[in-house]
Amino acid sequence: MNAQQIATIVTIGDELLIGQVIDTNSAFIAQQLSSIGIAVKHRVAVGDNYNDIWNVLQQESQQANIVFITGGLGPTADDITKPLLCQYFNGKMTLHQPTLQHVTHLFETVFKRPITERNIKQAEVPDCCTVIHNQVGTAPAMQFVKNSVQYFALPGVPHEMKWIMTHQIIPLLQQRNIQQHILHKTLITAGIGESMLADRLVDFESNLPQHISLAYLPNYGMVRLRLTAMGNDKTWVEETIQQQFSILKNVLHDVMICDEDITLSQLIGNLLVQHNSTISTAESCTGGYIAHLFTSLPGSSNYYKGSIVSYDNSVKENMLHVPSNIIEQYGAVSYETVEYMAKNVLQILNTDYAIATSGIMGPTGETPAKPIGTVWIAVASKQTVKAKLFNLRLDRKRNIELTAMHALLQIRELIVDKQGIT
Amino acid sequence: MNAQQIATIVTIGDELLIGQVIDTNSAFIAQQLSSIGIAVKHRVAVGDNYNDIWNVLQQESQQANIVFITGGLGPTADDITKPLLCQYFNGKMTLHQPTLQHVTHLFETVFKRPITERNIKQAEVPDCCTVIHNQVGTAPAMQFVKNSVQYFALPGVPHEMKWIMTHQIIPLLQQRNIQQHILHKTLITAGIGESMLADRLVDFESNLPQHISLAYLPNYGMVRLRLTAMGNDKTWVEETIQQQFSILKNVLHDVMICDEDITLSQLIGNLLVQHNSTISTAESCTGGYIAHLFTSLPGSSNYYKGSIVSYDNSVKENMLHVPSNIIEQYGAVSYETVEYMAKNVLQILNTDYAIATSGIMGPTGETPAKPIGTVWIAVASKQTVKAKLFNLRLDRKRNIELTAMHALLQIRELIVDKQGIT
Repeated sequence: MNAQQIATIVTIGDELLIGQVIDTNSAFIAQQLSSIGIAVKHRVAVGDNYNDIWNVLQQESQQANIVFITGGLGPTADDITKPLLCQYFNGKMTLHQPTLQHVTHLFETVFKRPITERNIKQAEVPDCCTVIHNQVGTAPAMQFVKNSVQYFALPGVPHEMKWIMTHQIIPLLQQRNIQQHILHKTLITAGIGESMLADRLVDFESNLPQHISLAYLPNYGMVRLRLTAMGNDKTWVEETIQQQFSILKNVLHDVMICDEDITLSQLIGNLLVQHNSTISTAESCTGGYIAHLFTSLPGSSNYYKGSIVSYDNSVKENMLHVPSNIIEQYGAVSYETVEYMAKNVLQILNTDYAIATSGIMGPTGETPAKPIGTVWIAVASKQTVKAKLFNLRLDRKRNIELTAMHALLQIRELIVDKQGIT
Repeated sequence: MNAQQIATIVTIGDELLIGQVIDTNSAFIAQQLSSIGIAVKHRVAVGDNYNDIWNVLQQESQQANIVFITGGLGPTADDITKPLLCQYFNGKMTLHQPTLQHVTHLFETVFKRPITERNIKQAEVPDCCTVIHNQVGTAPAMQFVKNSVQYFALPGVPHEMKWIMTHQIIPLLQQRNIQQHILHKTLITAGIGESMLADRLVDFESNLPQHISLAYLPNYGMVRLRLTAMGNDKTWVEETIQQQFSILKNVLHDVMICDEDITLSQLIGNLLVQHNSTISTAESCTGGYIAHLFTSLPGSSNYYKGSIVSYDNSVKENMLHVPSNIIEQYGAVSYETVEYMAKNVLQILNTDYAIATSGIMGPTGETPAKPIGTVWIAVASKQTVKAKLFNLRLDRKRNIELTAMHALLQIRELIVDKQGIT
């Protein structure tokens, strides 16, 4: 067996090949493996087709020594992974008593439904596998070994897969002696393009030691820069990546907004907590998305008080007290309106900071003077209000997301500025 | 060349293998291909590694006659796809004048930044490719042909890739004579588990003609059932899938909530438009997520008026007029509070329907009486208010999503009930 652990992730399901669902499972598995120093070589999605799955397993097992398989373990006729694995590993299907007890217990106490023949089948596994208990669902995970390659088959339901990965498989893999250490360090820049960054980093990149690499991940006007270091000596890997990361931070000090791989909303949340401040939002075109970004964060109730989603103009007038003559004269998408929205929501919800958005997200709603993508964003503190105009050129979904990003960058500036942080 | 067009999608980037980003590109490409009857056999993600990419291209070109490649076309050192393709197809790099003009124009008029040597490099392509114009970005797409296999290389920036797919590549592929027709029909059920459904569909599944298959896609207490039909004769494929879909709808008439592959929020939106009604939300634990689901839909301003995201209790009292003694006596997460929230937001925002949510999403905030996952949801019309208690058991993110789903299912019942629709 190769000293280095190389994994491949095989996801199974026709829905992946017609694009009906987005595969978040393999990203999660990759993350988890990466965090314990196991490199992922491939991720392959394949349909609910016997021969295709079989071929992919054969092919991938020649390139990796750990093969992850998710999906197709359910109770319905399109779930063919379990019988296939049974044949692939020359096993016989057999009832696994502890799993049956667990499934029966789930039906009695949680689902409160009679158990069916089909549910009982969930407890059948190939006799050549090691069963891995699934506390949060009915389909257990399975471990197989063949020609020194390990296989883990997991259910595709995301929260079940996640529970099994974090509670069962990662601890199992961690027990082994990991030879290879992989570390990542990420910083985030804003307001500078990928090419410009690359120009500034020519020297840095050419001076990077062999075992460290740099990747650029541009998104919505921000670029995440990721350093990856690999090696056998953990301390050496840690020290050298830290050195290079310090140099990188130094080179980019004027455009760096964060030296952790966190979201922009988390960054704002952290700033607000540090300064014991609160925030509210008045959202027209972002329609609650900024509120959602904040409230998705654990602990956000410490700084996020609420939003008035004033999608309809009546809400802007009645709830946010934007004077009706302002909306009549300048329009809902205007400097004047967002300024009122930000100032007023700050007062009404009694917060230290506020964000307001109003714009035309498309595909309809444009006027000759205000094409799709016209967006006003205002940010306010108790002392000041600042509004900016943007002209976006994406589709509705991405216009909403990009507006939220700009709004968060804008409030970050105000907070940092006000606190005198550089 | 095989009469049937089989595609494979190769996505390139280390970030995919460490799970730093979720791959939405290949789902989009798969959707687009599926819509014009091209089957996708594999989706493979591979890192920024010369040999790995080369091997994957060789391997996949033996299994498909159309190979899509995304990512790695940017201007930075980790973008190795273009030189690799140049070598793979035995070409020479050459400056593509129309692309250079386009890039120069973008920098002058849109980015308003000086163009750098690195940006100019974006206009270099292998001389053995056909350049496909990218209107919305600097990196063009490229088409190659080798041994009767077609290759399309696209930039990985999602909105650029999408523009190129929909405006350039799909029309190109559609011009050809498509031999194979693939059709999908999806219906959505609620309130019934996957196993129970499967039990009810045993006869239906065993009577399905050979060229039609059924797939189960469970998600948050709903199951999407997808019929897929394939064949050479378009009319026959259409007629036979329609027949089977009618039978399926008939068998599941009592649990089906929708016979289209749309989101639940779109379903509610459609219902509201049909009945010329409006809706508002008062969101505590969902924190604007339901507002976001509605406002993400084009045209939602016709029925969605706004939300009061009352994350903090002061907002529940001051903006939603929940009496403070009610919150004191019963708590913010209670039947009494959500009922007030729903009734009041309906009145304050003057809508026909309203949704209110209040719950403990985790990972903190639980009390002995109200563990994490305790959620109250109320829905209101002008005549009635109904509140329900839920005990969820997922993580924060999924608790929010699941609460939104339950809320939408609950308001659907109220609307359908009230309108006397069956």
